[in-house]
Amino acid sequence: MDNIESMFSERVKGLKGSAIREIFKVLQNADMISFAGGNPAPETFPTKELAQIAQDILLGNGTAALQYSVTDGYAPLKEIVKQRMSKIGIGKQDDDVAIMSGGQQGIDLTAKVFLNEGDGIIIENPSFIGALNAFRAYNAQLLPVDVESDGMNVEQLEDVLKNNNNVKLIYTIPTFQNPSGITMSLEKRKKLLALAEQYNVYIIEDNPYGELRFRGEDIPTIKSMDENGRVVYAGSFSKILSPGLRLGWVVAPSKILDKIIVVKQVNDVHTNIFAQVLATEYIKNYNIEEHIQECRDLYGKRCNLMLECMDKYFPDFCTYTRPEGGLFIWCMMPERFNAGEVAKQAIQKKVAFVPGNTFMADMDKPSSSFRLNYSTATEEKIEQGIKILGDMLKAMNN
Amino acid sequence: MDNIESMFSERVKGLKGSAIREIFKVLQNADMISFAGGNPAPETFPTKELAQIAQDILLGNGTAALQYSVTDGYAPLKEIVKQRMSKIGIGKQDDDVAIMSGGQQGIDLTAKVFLNEGDGIIIENPSFIGALNAFRAYNAQLLPVDVESDGMNVEQLEDVLKNNNNVKLIYTIPTFQNPSGITMSLEKRKKLLALAEQYNVYIIEDNPYGELRFRGEDIPTIKSMDENGRVVYAGSFSKILSPGLRLGWVVAPSKILDKIIVVKQVNDVHTNIFAQVLATEYIKNYNIEEHIQECRDLYGKRCNLMLECMDKYFPDFCTYTRPEGGLFIWCMMPERFNAGEVAKQAIQKKVAFVPGNTFMADMDKPSSSFRLNYSTATEEKIEQGIKILGDMLKAMNN
Repeated sequence: MDNIESMFSERVKGLKGSAIREIFKVLQNADMISFAGGNPAPETFPTKELAQIAQDILLGNGTAALQYSVTDGYAPLKEIVKQRMSKIGIGKQDDDVAIMSGGQQGIDLTAKVFLNEGDGIIIENPSFIGALNAFRAYNAQLLPVDVESDGMNVEQLEDVLKNNNNVKLIYTIPTFQNPSGITMSLEKRKKLLALAEQYNVYIIEDNPYGELRFRGEDIPTIKSMDENGRVVYAGSFSKILSPGLRLGWVVAPSKILDKIIVVKQVNDVHTNIFAQVLATEYIKNYNIEEHIQECRDLYGKRCNLMLECMDKYFPDFCTYTRPEGGLFIWCMMPERFNAGEVAKQAIQKKVAFVPGNTFMADMDKPSSSFRLNYSTATEEKIEQGIKILGDMLKAMNN
Repeated sequence: MDNIESMFSERVKGLKGSAIREIFKVLQNADMISFAGGNPAPETFPTKELAQIAQDILLGNGTAALQYSVTDGYAPLKEIVKQRMSKIGIGKQDDDVAIMSGGQQGIDLTAKVFLNEGDGIIIENPSFIGALNAFRAYNAQLLPVDVESDGMNVEQLEDVLKNNNNVKLIYTIPTFQNPSGITMSLEKRKKLLALAEQYNVYIIEDNPYGELRFRGEDIPTIKSMDENGRVVYAGSFSKILSPGLRLGWVVAPSKILDKIIVVKQVNDVHTNIFAQVLATEYIKNYNIEEHIQECRDLYGKRCNLMLECMDKYFPDFCTYTRPEGGLFIWCMMPERFNAGEVAKQAIQKKVAFVPGNTFMADMDKPSSSFRLNYSTATEEKIEQGIKILGDMLKAMNN
C-alpha cells in the first residue's frame, strides 16, 4: 500500500472532493444558519403524493419497477420529457432524449464521450464545481471565460477559441447560473452558438434552474436555437421534484446520444427504474406545473427578502447580483477581501456560505466574491443571518 | 455534424453497446423462450413488503429520502453492509465501505481511478461484458487469461504479468462466474493474491452472485484473505433484492475508497437515497437471509432441471459446466461450430441465448461456446427450450 498513490490514474491523482461538500459537514451543527448549500426547499417535496404512488406502483406492477431496465430510460418518462422540452422549442432535427441518474451524470458522460486527456473545455468563471471536477477527472484543460452581468464575456470567448486549437467543448449554465445567479442575454446566446459553429466545437448547456424563474421574461435556451446539432442539453428533476431520486436527462443529436448511452451502460447500466416510474406517475396524476409555480413563488419570496436584507445590512462596498430565478446570489467585495477568510469568520458567528474560489478554474487563488443560497433558510433565519454577515463585513472594513 | 465521429474521445470511438442488450430487443417477442438474460427471477422481488416500507418512509421522514445526500452512502445502509461483509471475513485493516449505484458503478469507477489509457488490465476470458466494456471505455489494454474448470489459469496469469509491465489491475469474478458459472478454487485464489503482491498490481473482485450458492461449500472470497489492501471488492443488491433499485457497494482500503468517492461525486453526486433507505428498512424489518435462501432454492431447482434436460436432449459432443450457484451455465460445442450462427438459428426457433464471443477479449473472433441463463424461465419453458436447442444441435451435426 506504500505506493498506492503512484498507482492511481493521472486523471484522479490531483483530484479533490468538492469543498462545498466539506462545508456540509460543518452544517451538521443545528444552530448554524446556512446559505452554503444548493438544496431545494424540502417543504416543496410532494411526499404524500409520492407515498401513494409508490405503493400503487409496487402493489400494481411492482416487478417491472424492480427489475433490470433499458439504458436509455423508461419510455413513458422519456415521452414526458420530450413533450415538456418541445414546449420550450427543444427537440428538432434528429435530437433524442435519454434519462440520466441526475443532471450531473449527463454532464460527466458527455465529457467522457468528447474529451481526450489534454483537450480543452471552455468554462464560465465562476461555474458549478461539480461540472468542473467532472472535467478535471478526464484530465481536460479548463479554459476560463469571465462571467459578466449578462453572461459570458463573448469577446474573451472568441479569443480563447482563436488561441487554443485543442478546444472541443464549451460548458455553460446560461440561465440563473450557479454560482452567480446571472442569466445570459439572448444576444450572447446567439453569439455563443455562432462561435461554436465557426470554431467547430460543441456546447453543453446545463439548465437545472431554468424552470425556477420568479421575475422577468423567459429567454430561449441555446438548444432551442441549435439548428445544426451543436448542443447537448442537460436537464434535471432535482430542483423541480426531488434531488434524492437522482433523475435528469440529456437531449442531444442521436449520434452523440448513442455514445452517451453506451458509456452510461458501462457506468450504471440504467437509472433506478422505480424512481423513473415514480416520477412518471407523479407527472401523469398530479400537476407538476402547479408544483413548480409553488417552488418559484417560495424562492422568489426568499430571494427578495435576502436582497432587501442585503440592501439594509450590507456595507456599500459590497455589490451583488439580483437574480430573476434559480437559487443563488453572488456577492462581490473589494479585492482586498479574501472570501475564504471571511467565510471562516462567518462560521465562528454561525453563518455559512461558499467562498468564490471554489467555483473558479484556479481554486487556489483567493477570491473576493462569495455565493449565497436562499432556497432553504426560513425568513427569520435569512434576516438574522444577513444581518450578522452585514455587521461582520462592516466591522472588517474598519 | 458531418465530423462528429472525429470529435469523440479516443476511448469511446470504437466502443459498442452490449450485444446482450441488443438481444434483449428480440426478447420483446412474447413467445420467445429466453435463456439470454441475466435477470433475477421477478417472482422473488418482495413487492408487498417494499410497498409498505416505501409508504412508511415517505409519510414518516419523506423529505430526508428525497433531498440531496452524502456521496459515500446512507450511513445505516453502510453499517448493514459492513456487518454482512464482516460475517464473511471482509473488512479488516483500514477497509471501508461506500454505497454504489449498482455493482457496475463500483467496477467502472475503480477502473477510472486506476487506469490511464494504455494501462493493462488482466481479465478472465470469457468474462462479464459490462465490465470489459467499462475497461474499454478507458482505452485500457485487456489482457485475457483463460478460465479453466477451477477458475483462471494461474500459470498463464503469471506469464501475462511477467511479460507486460503495464498491468495495474486484475479483474475477476471468482464465484459462479459470469458467463461460465465456474468457481475459482481456494488454491487459485491464494495464488492470484500472491501474484498480485509479487507484481504490485491490484485486484477487482466482483462478487454479485456469491450469495446464490445452492450446492457445495462456500469458498473464502479473495478479499477475506487480503492482508495488504490489494483487493477492491464489488458487491451488489441486484441479485439478492432488486436490480431496478441500482444498489451495490465497494469495500476497499480507505486511500483507494476516497478516490472512488471523489469520482462518484462527479459522476452521480450520490446514489438514489430513497432506494438506499428502502433497502435499509427492508433489511431491518424483514429477514433478507431467508429471502436469499428462497432465491437459492429457486435457482438451484431451475439449474438442476436445465442440466437434467441438457443431459437428456443435448448431443454428446456438447459439454457444459455444472454450477454450484449463480445464474449461468456455459456450453461448449466442438470448434467447427460458430455460436453466433447457432444463436441466429435458435432465434428462428424462438429460443435465445448469448454466443460466447460476446464475453471474450476479442469479440470479433467466433466462439464455439455459449451462455445459458436459468433464473427467469419457468420449468415448462426450460424443458421446452432445451429440447428445441438439443434437437437443433443434433440436426446441425448431420
